[in-house]
Amino acid sequence: MTAEQFADRHIGPGPDDERRMLDAVGYASIDELMDAAIPEVIRWHGRLDLPPPASEHEALAELRALAARNTVAVSMIGLGYHGTHTPAVIRRNVLENPAWYTAYTPYQPEISQGRLEALLNFQTMVSDLTGLATANASMLDEGTAAAEAMTLARRASKSGSRVYVVDADALPQTIAVIAGRAEPLGIEVRVLDLAVEPLPAEFFGVHLQYPGASGAVRDHAPLVEAAHAVGALVTVAADLLALTLLRPPGEIGADIAAGTTQRFGVPMGFGGPHAGYLAVRAGLERMLPGRLVGVSRDAAGAAAYRLALQTREQHIRREKATSNICTAQVLLAVMAGMYAVYHGPDGLREIAARTHRMAARLAAGLRAGGVEVADVAFFDTVTARVPGRAGQVVAEAQRRGVNLRLVDADRVGVSCDETTTAEQVAVVWAAFGVDGVAGEVPEMLPAALARTSDFLTHPVFRTHRSETAMLRYLRRLADFDYALDRGMIPLGSCTMKLNATAEMEPVSWAEFANIHPLAPAEQTAGYRELIGQLEGWLAEVTGYDAVSVQPNAGSQGELAGLLAIRAWHRSRGDQHRDVCLIPSSAHGTNAASAVMAGMRVVVVGCDADGNVDLVDLDAKIDAHRDTLAAIMVTYPSTHGVYETGIASLCAKVHDAGGQVYVDGANLNALVGFARPGRFGADVSHLNLHKTFCIPHGGGGPGVGPVAVRAHLAPFLPADPAGAPVPGRPAIAAARYGSAGILPIPWAYLRMMGADGLARATGVAVLAANYVAARLREHFPVLYAGNKGLVAHECILDLRPVTKATGVSVDDVAKRLIDYGFHAPTMSFPVAGTLMVEPTESEDLAELDRFCDAMIAIRAEIDKVGSGAWPTGDNPLANAPHTAEMVGGDDWPHPYPRSVGAWPAGVERAGKYWPPVRRVDGGYGDRNLVCSCPSPQAYES
Amino acid sequence: MTAEQFADRHIGPGPDDERRMLDAVGYASIDELMDAAIPEVIRWHGRLDLPPPASEHEALAELRALAARNTVAVSMIGLGYHGTHTPAVIRRNVLENPAWYTAYTPYQPEISQGRLEALLNFQTMVSDLTGLATANASMLDEGTAAAEAMTLARRASKSGSRVYVVDADALPQTIAVIAGRAEPLGIEVRVLDLAVEPLPAEFFGVHLQYPGASGAVRDHAPLVEAAHAVGALVTVAADLLALTLLRPPGEIGADIAAGTTQRFGVPMGFGGPHAGYLAVRAGLERMLPGRLVGVSRDAAGAAAYRLALQTREQHIRREKATSNICTAQVLLAVMAGMYAVYHGPDGLREIAARTHRMAARLAAGLRAGGVEVADVAFFDTVTARVPGRAGQVVAEAQRRGVNLRLVDADRVGVSCDETTTAEQVAVVWAAFGVDGVAGEVPEMLPAALARTSDFLTHPVFRTHRSETAMLRYLRRLADFDYALDRGMIPLGSCTMKLNATAEMEPVSWAEFANIHPLAPAEQTAGYRELIGQLEGWLAEVTGYDAVSVQPNAGSQGELAGLLAIRAWHRSRGDQHRDVCLIPSSAHGTNAASAVMAGMRVVVVGCDADGNVDLVDLDAKIDAHRDTLAAIMVTYPSTHGVYETGIASLCAKVHDAGGQVYVDGANLNALVGFARPGRFGADVSHLNLHKTFCIPHGGGGPGVGPVAVRAHLAPFLPADPAGAPVPGRPAIAAARYGSAGILPIPWAYLRMMGADGLARATGVAVLAANYVAARLREHFPVLYAGNKGLVAHECILDLRPVTKATGVSVDDVAKRLIDYGFHAPTMSFPVAGTLMVEPTESEDLAELDRFCDAMIAIRAEIDKVGSGAWPTGDNPLANAPHTAEMVGGDDWPHPYPRSVGAWPAGVERAGKYWPPVRRVDGGYGDRNLVCSCPSPQAYES
Repeated sequence: MTAEQFADRHIGPGPDDERRMLDAVGYASIDELMDAAIPEVIRWHGRLDLPPPASEHEALAELRALAARNTVAVSMIGLGYHGTHTPAVIRRNVLENPAWYTAYTPYQPEISQGRLEALLNFQTMVSDLTGLATANASMLDEGTAAAEAMTLARRASKSGSRVYVVDADALPQTIAVIAGRAEPLGIEVRVLDLAVEPLPAEFFGVHLQYPGASGAVRDHAPLVEAAHAVGALVTVAADLLALTLLRPPGEIGADIAAGTTQRFGVPMGFGGPHAGYLAVRAGLERMLPGRLVGVSRDAAGAAAYRLALQTREQHIRREKATSNICTAQVLLAVMAGMYAVYHGPDGLREIAARTHRMAARLAAGLRAGGVEVADVAFFDTVTARVPGRAGQVVAEAQRRGVNLRLVDADRVGVSCDETTTAEQVAVVWAAFGVDGVAGEVPEMLPAALARTSDFLTHPVFRTHRSETAMLRYLRRLADFDYALDRGMIPLGSCTMKLNATAEMEPVSWAEFANIHPLAPAEQTAGYRELIGQLEGWLAEVTGYDAVSVQPNAGSQGELAGLLAIRAWHRSRGDQHRDVCLIPSSAHGTNAASAVMAGMRVVVVGCDADGNVDLVDLDAKIDAHRDTLAAIMVTYPSTHGVYETGIASLCAKVHDAGGQVYVDGANLNALVGFARPGRFGADVSHLNLHKTFCIPHGGGGPGVGPVAVRAHLAPFLPADPAGAPVPGRPAIAAARYGSAGILPIPWAYLRMMGADGLARATGVAVLAANYVAARLREHFPVLYAGNKGLVAHECILDLRPVTKATGVSVDDVAKRLIDYGFHAPTMSFPVAGTLMVEPTESEDLAELDRFCDAMIAIRAEIDKVGSGAWPTGDNPLANAPHTAEMVGGDDWPHPYPRSVGAWPAGVERAGKYWPPVRRVDGGYGDRNLVCSCPSPQAYES
Repeated sequence: MTAEQFADRHIGPGPDDERRMLDAVGYASIDELMDAAIPEVIRWHGRLDLPPPASEHEALAELRALAARNTVAVSMIGLGYHGTHTPAVIRRNVLENPAWYTAYTPYQPEISQGRLEALLNFQTMVSDLTGLATANASMLDEGTAAAEAMTLARRASKSGSRVYVVDADALPQTIAVIAGRAEPLGIEVRVLDLAVEPLPAEFFGVHLQYPGASGAVRDHAPLVEAAHAVGALVTVAADLLALTLLRPPGEIGADIAAGTTQRFGVPMGFGGPHAGYLAVRAGLERMLPGRLVGVSRDAAGAAAYRLALQTREQHIRREKATSNICTAQVLLAVMAGMYAVYHGPDGLREIAARTHRMAARLAAGLRAGGVEVADVAFFDTVTARVPGRAGQVVAEAQRRGVNLRLVDADRVGVSCDETTTAEQVAVVWAAFGVDGVAGEVPEMLPAALARTSDFLTHPVFRTHRSETAMLRYLRRLADFDYALDRGMIPLGSCTMKLNATAEMEPVSWAEFANIHPLAPAEQTAGYRELIGQLEGWLAEVTGYDAVSVQPNAGSQGELAGLLAIRAWHRSRGDQHRDVCLIPSSAHGTNAASAVMAGMRVVVVGCDADGNVDLVDLDAKIDAHRDTLAAIMVTYPSTHGVYETGIASLCAKVHDAGGQVYVDGANLNALVGFARPGRFGADVSHLNLHKTFCIPHGGGGPGVGPVAVRAHLAPFLPADPAGAPVPGRPAIAAARYGSAGILPIPWAYLRMMGADGLARATGVAVLAANYVAARLREHFPVLYAGNKGLVAHECILDLRPVTKATGVSVDDVAKRLIDYGFHAPTMSFPVAGTLMVEPTESEDLAELDRFCDAMIAIRAEIDKVGSGAWPTGDNPLANAPHTAEMVGGDDWPHPYPRSVGAWPAGVERAGKYWPPVRRVDGGYGDRNLVCSCPSPQAYES
């Protein structure tokens, strides 16, 4: 009784397709192909020890059972994670809509206008609420946002101090993440209770929480003044909901605001993913890390969005980078921004006011019952003193279905939120053994700190208030974009494979969504079992001994891995080992992470075949033998090649006392065929949003677990909520990072099984070689390994045709939009090339559609080359063609409209039309606008 | 602590909008407007006695609690309802996707190509599997499909007999529905056990089940031969899954096949909704009731789909109609068709074979344990004999979580399906007290009946097998269509209001989706409480005394209501009362339903103001005083007017001994302001898919509860699964009809509350009057009531401009597509007009966008009228404009392309493009193709 195999749904090509592809590549079977492609020295001939594959419904049933072992209690723990009502229209049409969640990072702005607008809404929301000039398009969480604020402050401060002050009333997990980031950078963190302790004489920055973790709302203006007086910068970690009622950081002179937008409609998810935010005052915007959306114009002069100031980012700056953030939290930022669009300023104010009234009532009732409540202003959180009785109160509340915060043996924290009801307040009173209070309750917000300035005044926050209007706005934006639900996104290094619905569905379930990261362990048994299984399966797949899912992006996994190496060296007394070798072809985050881990980057060259130059490697090892900490390589290489020298590379580095970091970005070419933990590497991070099916979400969420061999296991990230562990810095704000989306890779692994995973790898490699085989005669394939085979991706070299014809890699990428495709990766790792990664999920029809398009484009290039079309005015130069252009009354171009819009093979009806013409990025960088422009701006 | 009001999200215009609209209409408040609009004689000044409104999350929490009171057991009851795995990609991207579920019936084919293609897939699937020439685009359920087959047989048969034979092994609920339909039509139903009893000498048709309710698979060919010999037609009610393995009805000579497609991925939903099907042999296609999709061509000669042979339908044939089916089950038909696309012929065959193997194993185990199993061939269902012990076995299985069918005290039915596991079979064995069987088990399908013919050979059933391909296919089709998620659908009489996500979400929950309609009562407590509350609230809203939700479409509600009237007359000895008065403006289903209820239709004219002509009414009452059964009126009238004569009309009919049926189609203009059950009506049906937010789903599902005053309550539909009750015919196959979607209206009523509902009505009337006020000077508004006010819709009279300029109502409707709208209702109830119903859910911006478009179109008409544009070649005549047309290399038209594509106010980017040009319906009717055409057909 054979059951339906999920692998057959995940893997695009069926048996017939596979046979035809193998014929084209010249192999009899996938096994034979893989034997030829993968160097025997790393090849693993075992079979992954995973449970036999479950069908979709079996996996969903198992996940239901795991979910049932979690308990959804009322969470009043607070500490940066709050209950929130996700508007159903946003849940269904953003979080559960593949048009949003399967989109890629908006590097191709012409086909990303929808999510760029949504992110601009997010930036505007953050900027308005914080009162600061510029906000970026999300951070990974509040803890990492605060850590980035610290390093930003250090760069911007004129103080020569290496001291960073953190107020003791900051969130504990934020302090942990800041401390972890500070140490390798030589920053000294001083945690001071600034309510009573003075600032030190010298420091470069100070971190203040607003309201504090205790709930206290204090006027930070005097501290800001004091800090500025010594040239220090001030970061205020502010609660955006509170800022609808409270004077915002920008208005008290803060330089930076950081925080989370979780309570804007994003479920707690046992810690994540949520969108952190970072905003800066005017003058600091070019120092802001992370992605920033800005307004620019297209070829017709119309307003168009795109990522601004990209030269700040680590994929451009590489070892000069000061932040490694790459993947952010786009999907969640879109949700939070849409929550603001849905509620508008009045609605947000009302939610905040209601939340505050609940807290005020709660406090009044406690006081009336004789419980001591700190005599300070507060917004939503009350800290009550019940000497010696705190544990008992918390337990009693838990028994009644409400989780409170056990601050210490004497104090209990209670946090209200949008979802708090009068009944829940009464339960809390009962847990404290008091009767509560009737009648009017005074406001507990200080009048002096009342917000007087307007916010969210842009029409977008006023015009989509009915669900009908909201639904249409979401649809309209989604329709602007090209995501995996329209067609292939053959992005080299990004592995844009299927994100199956069965993998996605559990993310919405209350038992996974509505769990606070600090909920009592007995309420999270299902989550912890799921995470334990997932970590175990990932260890099996990679051949490592231990895995931590805490890092909530690949970049964070890199940092965690390098910090583990660093701590290991130090544990052996090798404090001096701080050189990190990185090949010149590496992803930009590698170098940035190494810098953040306190290492010195030394670049190793590549040889003519694109492989790590082993001669140069020897030289660099020799030069740095005593200080060598690690080498960081990607395998297969970022050139898409299985380098045969990998084993020897590992040995050389080990011989010199270094550790080997294998970046797992390209793990999709290895699963089931080779295991980094067994072919010589000591540590890897994985990208669950690449190899293991977490959707890219338009630029996040990702998850970047770090996997290590046994000797490094003691140095994996510690729980940020626990006591600090030397050598085990917390990497993210929550113990399990973005736990809320871990059901996705769990389901993928559970449904694929060992054979399915290996087949996926084989088909991914086959597909890349098929594309290479079909396109090689039209565009040179830049690098190859054994027998001329590529791994899971191939680089098409456009430099010769660019030189001959002037047609650029950009022109080809944009022209592909006219053909109905998302462009491959442009100019990475080699400028002037396109890197194509088809993945196993594309069927032969789609692969052929892509190859046909590339071949047709090659013919178009030749027409430019031959002079049949002028250089500056041809279908490539003018790509992409909008409907408005093609259907315009004038057509001044030397080729027919139909050639512009419907080149060979493009379907007549149902064609995807980009909403704007080619976007001029430079114009926007010169005229920086990073919040919603007035409607008039579009009237050009 | 004010909570978020759902009504503010449901109702489009906010306070500012409302004020501006009131100003335009000339009233100070909605109350004042309603006082003026609604005749005082019917006006109700009370407040609905409903629970105070819940917020979205409160309502969802209450629904969760109700759902938790249902128990999802393993269902092996069978009888036409089977467990099935809905592929997650279909659940998320069809059932849960507003692009599919908010679409309207595809009467405007140019903007409905996606769902038309999906329905053509469905028709092709049914036609292929049944082996018959033509299948329609769905029926309401198997029972009603079988009843329609009976009346079709009667029309087509040359036999003069009025006897219809039904095999005793037919599904019990089918027999009940057939019997209910037959009686008023004078058809005598004879239920015979054709396995042992002979056919009668004369009969016009015979109904056979294949496989039978007992599970038996019999060769029906001899019966077919015998039936044909006496001029009778044969209907085979066939299980489509079984037909992948069994010789199909068409190949044994059956004339008609009927059944359900539920087990093709559609959850059981406690009885519905699912798509029934009906297929006929060549020669009968023009007699087929219901909607039929066919292939035709557009203005450019390209293949295009549209509804075929519409002149068969009751909205054209009216009192000559022989079926009243109107709303069908499009959304579910799309799901079932996509299930076939997803699995393909091989996948379906494998599912069927696996199901059969489970049943065969089950039977073998029972036999091995000494349980008597009937010695017949079977597919998925086994009937076991355990004399005197059946109740005990069923109870024991239930205790172990498995529901079986209690046939009678001695027999138990066990039905396997796609979801059956070996563990469940073992549970059944244990319940019977047997040990089961190991090893190979023989097939129990008769070799002589093995299917040898191919099916689903069209490429569509082979090319979307990976989830990626499936997802893209679904997106591509959805993108072809215009639904409420793009913009307004101002369809008069159809009330296309918001279908809020919070209303929709519970439909997917397992506790509502996966419940068999015959599950034990203790497993359905939540459902029954929900239904009881809903029926109560609907009674309160309408002022009636009793409500039944059984009718699964408005048409069925009409029939149920008329049958109640008929039964009431008969209960009083008034067998002769059979005249039903129907105004000339009535919806076509009214007359068709009256005919089906055994009544004679007498038409009452309308006066110059469009109201029922009370003089003619008097005359007709006089002429039929002794035989008057009922009058059937719509209120407000189909002209969109609150007729002041309604009370007097009711009185006159009552005085003559007749009953008053008020069609509830326009209830959206009454809720909270007038209650038909209290202003003189005896019975109404409601359209939950109009007034109460069940989405139209592209043409279904609907729900048409029947509401009656106390004296008619004893004549509401009986449970089709229970013993027949004289005078209470079953209307649908399941007791609660389409129970699975009743959480939608429940949530709507629960979240709106009394005030919200009344406000919705007021804003709906305000919106219609606003549109009338803005457009009156451009197009005459045909009818109005008190003070020149319309009710909730208005009729724009295009006849004068058509006469003057030749621009037709069709031209305007299609031109509205270019402006980004779905056309209003065309030529109903008055030919040459457009009826606009904006509903309360459209905000002022959207209402203005529509009015601006209509005004701009009026100016375009004038350009045709003035001769500035030629009659046959202008933007109206050529509408809608496709991208292909506008971007074509040639542009032979006397107006600029931009005028064609982007008339005033239409957004440049993000415009909706229809995939085809104007569709030529007549061509398709002359060249009837109602299954998927070969790909070559598109190459014209």
